Amino acid sequence: MAKERARNNTYIGSPAAECALLDTIDTPDDLRRLPQDKLPQVCAEIRQFLINALSKNPGHFASSMGAVELTVALHYVFNTPYDRIVWDVGHQAYGHKLLTGRRKRFDTNRKLGGLSGFPNPDESPYDTFTAGHASNSISAALGMAVASEMLQDEPRRNVIAVIGDASISGGLAFEGLNNAANTKNNLLIILNDNDMSIDRNVGSLNSYLAHLTTSKSYNSIRYKTYKYLKKLHLVSERHRGAILRFNNSIKALLSHQQNIFEGLNIRYFGPIDGHDINRVVRVLKDIKDMEGPRILHLRTIKGKGYEPAEKDPASWHAPGKFDPETGHRTAIPAGNGKPVKYQDVFGHTLVELARINDRIVGVTAAMPSGTSMSVLQSEYPERVFDVGISEGHAVTFSGGLAKDGMRPFCAIYSSFLQRAYDHIIHDVAIQRLPVTFCIDRAGLVGEDGVTHHGVFDLSYLRSIPNITIASPRDEHHLRWLMYTAQSADLGPVAIRYPRGNGANPQWRAGFKTLPVGKGECLTQGRDVAVLSIGTIAKEAQGAVARAVSDGISVAHYDMIFLKPVDDGILREVADMHCPIITVEDGVVTGGLGSAVIEWMNDNGYHPHVTRIGVPDEFVAHGTIPELYRMCGMDEDAIYGAIVSAKTIERR
Amino acid sequence: MAKERARNNTYIGSPAAECALLDTIDTPDDLRRLPQDKLPQVCAEIRQFLINALSKNPGHFASSMGAVELTVALHYVFNTPYDRIVWDVGHQAYGHKLLTGRRKRFDTNRKLGGLSGFPNPDESPYDTFTAGHASNSISAALGMAVASEMLQDEPRRNVIAVIGDASISGGLAFEGLNNAANTKNNLLIILNDNDMSIDRNVGSLNSYLAHLTTSKSYNSIRYKTYKYLKKLHLVSERHRGAILRFNNSIKALLSHQQNIFEGLNIRYFGPIDGHDINRVVRVLKDIKDMEGPRILHLRTIKGKGYEPAEKDPASWHAPGKFDPETGHRTAIPAGNGKPVKYQDVFGHTLVELARINDRIVGVTAAMPSGTSMSVLQSEYPERVFDVGISEGHAVTFSGGLAKDGMRPFCAIYSSFLQRAYDHIIHDVAIQRLPVTFCIDRAGLVGEDGVTHHGVFDLSYLRSIPNITIASPRDEHHLRWLMYTAQSADLGPVAIRYPRGNGANPQWRAGFKTLPVGKGECLTQGRDVAVLSIGTIAKEAQGAVARAVSDGISVAHYDMIFLKPVDDGILREVADMHCPIITVEDGVVTGGLGSAVIEWMNDNGYHPHVTRIGVPDEFVAHGTIPELYRMCGMDEDAIYGAIVSAKTIERR
Repeated sequence: MAKERARNNTYIGSPAAECALLDTIDTPDDLRRLPQDKLPQVCAEIRQFLINALSKNPGHFASSMGAVELTVALHYVFNTPYDRIVWDVGHQAYGHKLLTGRRKRFDTNRKLGGLSGFPNPDESPYDTFTAGHASNSISAALGMAVASEMLQDEPRRNVIAVIGDASISGGLAFEGLNNAANTKNNLLIILNDNDMSIDRNVGSLNSYLAHLTTSKSYNSIRYKTYKYLKKLHLVSERHRGAILRFNNSIKALLSHQQNIFEGLNIRYFGPIDGHDINRVVRVLKDIKDMEGPRILHLRTIKGKGYEPAEKDPASWHAPGKFDPETGHRTAIPAGNGKPVKYQDVFGHTLVELARINDRIVGVTAAMPSGTSMSVLQSEYPERVFDVGISEGHAVTFSGGLAKDGMRPFCAIYSSFLQRAYDHIIHDVAIQRLPVTFCIDRAGLVGEDGVTHHGVFDLSYLRSIPNITIASPRDEHHLRWLMYTAQSADLGPVAIRYPRGNGANPQWRAGFKTLPVGKGECLTQGRDVAVLSIGTIAKEAQGAVARAVSDGISVAHYDMIFLKPVDDGILREVADMHCPIITVEDGVVTGGLGSAVIEWMNDNGYHPHVTRIGVPDEFVAHGTIPELYRMCGMDEDAIYGAIVSAKTIERR
Repeated sequence: MAKERARNNTYIGSPAAECALLDTIDTPDDLRRLPQDKLPQVCAEIRQFLINALSKNPGHFASSMGAVELTVALHYVFNTPYDRIVWDVGHQAYGHKLLTGRRKRFDTNRKLGGLSGFPNPDESPYDTFTAGHASNSISAALGMAVASEMLQDEPRRNVIAVIGDASISGGLAFEGLNNAANTKNNLLIILNDNDMSIDRNVGSLNSYLAHLTTSKSYNSIRYKTYKYLKKLHLVSERHRGAILRFNNSIKALLSHQQNIFEGLNIRYFGPIDGHDINRVVRVLKDIKDMEGPRILHLRTIKGKGYEPAEKDPASWHAPGKFDPETGHRTAIPAGNGKPVKYQDVFGHTLVELARINDRIVGVTAAMPSGTSMSVLQSEYPERVFDVGISEGHAVTFSGGLAKDGMRPFCAIYSSFLQRAYDHIIHDVAIQRLPVTFCIDRAGLVGEDGVTHHGVFDLSYLRSIPNITIASPRDEHHLRWLMYTAQSADLGPVAIRYPRGNGANPQWRAGFKTLPVGKGECLTQGRDVAVLSIGTIAKEAQGAVARAVSDGISVAHYDMIFLKPVDDGILREVADMHCPIITVEDGVVTGGLGSAVIEWMNDNGYHPHVTRIGVPDEFVAHGTIPELYRMCGMDEDAIYGAIVSAKTIERR
């Protein structure tokens, strides 16, 4: 029904979009000077701008389209940046970027040196907090709201967390909600409820939110009563206690319904249509000066205003380039005989394994499409558990499954798995449970930038006892590692692989068991030894080939396993008494390079080791080749390292 | 009121306790053979046993006392270990240990080689999952329940999660609840609600739970209706749909009240008196064969049955030795002129700093007494935020506070901070926010064992950019590090210190700023260099003194900072061309030892480095001296390492 309604005011992109009003808005102050009846036009122009911009320079589309009215209303009603808007995740914040002085640079979005795809406090004072991992907005905003109370900011500062219905199901958001009413603060939570995360939403809270719509009449009566009281000037904070009691009585009289949020002592308003800009502005003005934590529940449509995206919001989450007029997308389809994404190798391989091992189940945290767990879902829907945005639960739940006989494959993006670090230790590794962690988007991920790079996993996993850690250099090894993980009794296994495509059209190799803790010699040589792990082997191979053609004798080993590390290879290399170069797509602090020099030291060898990998700093966004170059991890850098290592005398 | 009721059946310990019935129970089968009217006596005897045992061999007291009836009822009604009981945290599980074949070994509780203080699957098939970090039971039990459904276990297997009202406020528990109704499963959640965590409970959910008691009449009517239907044989799972609809109608008719759990599609029963053993048994029998997730809410009293503990449950959480008859505790009070616990040095120092810096606030996650944040709480209650069991929120909330001007000191035990690993990266470090992490219980903690050792922090923090990591060797340095953290603009600072007492009666030194990234030479020497970090300096100092008296010239440096590591010291030591021994109370994989050999390698030095620390395996429980010896980290081991290093020729 909501979807039906939406059709009527769908805008279709046009290459020659006019943004007469938007062009005059360089800061939210310009917006706030407009009469309210111009706001629908501003919204239309933002949508037009986003359609045109994103059709050429891809990014997160559907979420920002759904949040246009909300964004305009917030900057219209609140005194940003003095008032703080904290975006959760921030897929939804493109409109916010347009209104806060970044319209003219928007064509640099997600490019090296350009705008970040997520709110970024280093980029703008309007971006108040790092966003990129879900569910942090309530806690962060609560911190700001409490700080403001303590510092007695004058004028009173409003702090607004904007959180989606998927993010609010994360444990962190619940912890924030559970603490919101504990202290004096002035937090406003906007629940932007579009019934979607990146994929369709799951979890009971979500059905609960849907159900809240049906209680609209009650809330509407309560809201009207409040407004009526306000008109009578009965609503001052001095009378707050009385009003609350009065409100509670209405509640008691009208329906006795108790709302989850009110159960947590957060005043609830809504749900209201989040695309009715005038209504949203009016409600925000009404509840703006209330004290104490409040939640305003807006129903919105992901992709709103662009018909193709409204119809298929999941695949328009980040659609790539498209034709604004037709909605035709130019993404390269993965076909037969073409290289596919690593996630698809994972997805198809998991189905093949599930066919032969009925203990295998899949667990994903709101990313069935992103991880291609959806492939297993299509064939065996009952064997896939999409637990929503709750990585901690995903891991502990996998531990429970494994404890009683199943062989869960838990697929989570590397940077999001950080949320489950303790759960890996406590609920899996201590008990040596056979959970296979399929860690997607490992290493530098490119345009998503600092919050999404999966560069810590090798380091944080390596110090955990009982865990086997591996990374395939190609599609075949990914398949073999997955096969090995489920066939042997290894306890927990982590397999990390990158975002993006492989290189091999014949990726579907037959299965075989890999010897655990054994690497492979790719090139023999004696002057310099290169040890790599993962698909960055490709950069190393290019460098090795160049060095060899220069007449340098270079050995190249793919370690495959970080833990247990291959003693055989390390001893062989140590006995060559030549310089060693380690190459990994992760932080050099604690990863493969550290493992190699630790082993050398502990075994009485003292070769010169050059560690190539992500340096000890946070890396911004850019294409992967750009970032590899920046971090000194590309073929050229490895080649350079080989050449200079050659000059080091043997020990 | 509840407390009043409790007095009437308080048992007082007696040294010559008789446990006539308990002595006949070697497995739950023996318990199940007893007539139900004997259960109150079993409960009384368990209490008696616990009072006597724990008065001599200290452990977690009050939680287990409160869970006696619940424990007996579960083993009486369910077919353990085939049916699975998953204890959350497991402070409450001593009664469970007594009933499951471990009564005779209970005097080894928490001792090296003896029983673990928490459920431990390696110890008994009745211990189904690792417990020790709060809030994991629902997710783990859900995994087991789903596994059982998928494997179509015959007979049907019941899975029961037992979770306290403090643990249920953790985000992980919410994630579990949010997912419980998503799949076919047979999970029973027992909410053991005693309105306490270790300290008094906080958070809105908690007030909500308290409020649920008032809705007792509604729930009781609903429950009676259910029982009536059951009597009429209308309650079969075939009729489940109808019953549910009927139930919903009753609900609609009677009160319209919507319960948080029912909002999440979990059938709710309760609250009932958790000390009425017959009632608990009856209800468990009634709801045992229902399908789908259910929650049974029991109200219990922490410390139940032992008057001193009922009166002061927080300090009887883990009371140390006591006289069972009088309740007089023999814990050594920290007085003037005596060494105090590190946590108390932290607590008192924080107050002193808060007096001079009004931006300082304290954040703790359910551990105000355990961390001694309570000292600040007494002086400035409005400047301490106890956020309950929610480490992730604690860190993100601290990030928000710091972003808008405050200087939060966030005090969390090392092993629990693992829950907030991602939050440290994402919500603090990326933004270089000035949050000071005061990491208590760092290193081996002794009797609490594998789940509580804080041995990963140095390693997992070291790979995070932008963070300063330090560890004091004594009380003065803890004070100086805290002072330095709040006075300088360092971004995030982590200060880790151990459980237990310091050594210096004059611990209250004046404040001074320490130079960041600078260590200190404690002993000069030239044959061997010992580099230590943290209070384990004491072991190193003993070893160095012995070696020096043997005529070995040993240098000893306290690094103080792990990050940035002191280049000056490292270069000085490297230029001595002598063997190096690193000493740390944490995993050797990735900590100080790794940092030292990485630095040496990167700077072209190749000394022989012996890394002393926790080896790459999970460490069980025992006293700290025992564990230090086991891990080769005690004075003797360091002395041995110095002596053998001396024999290594200089490079």
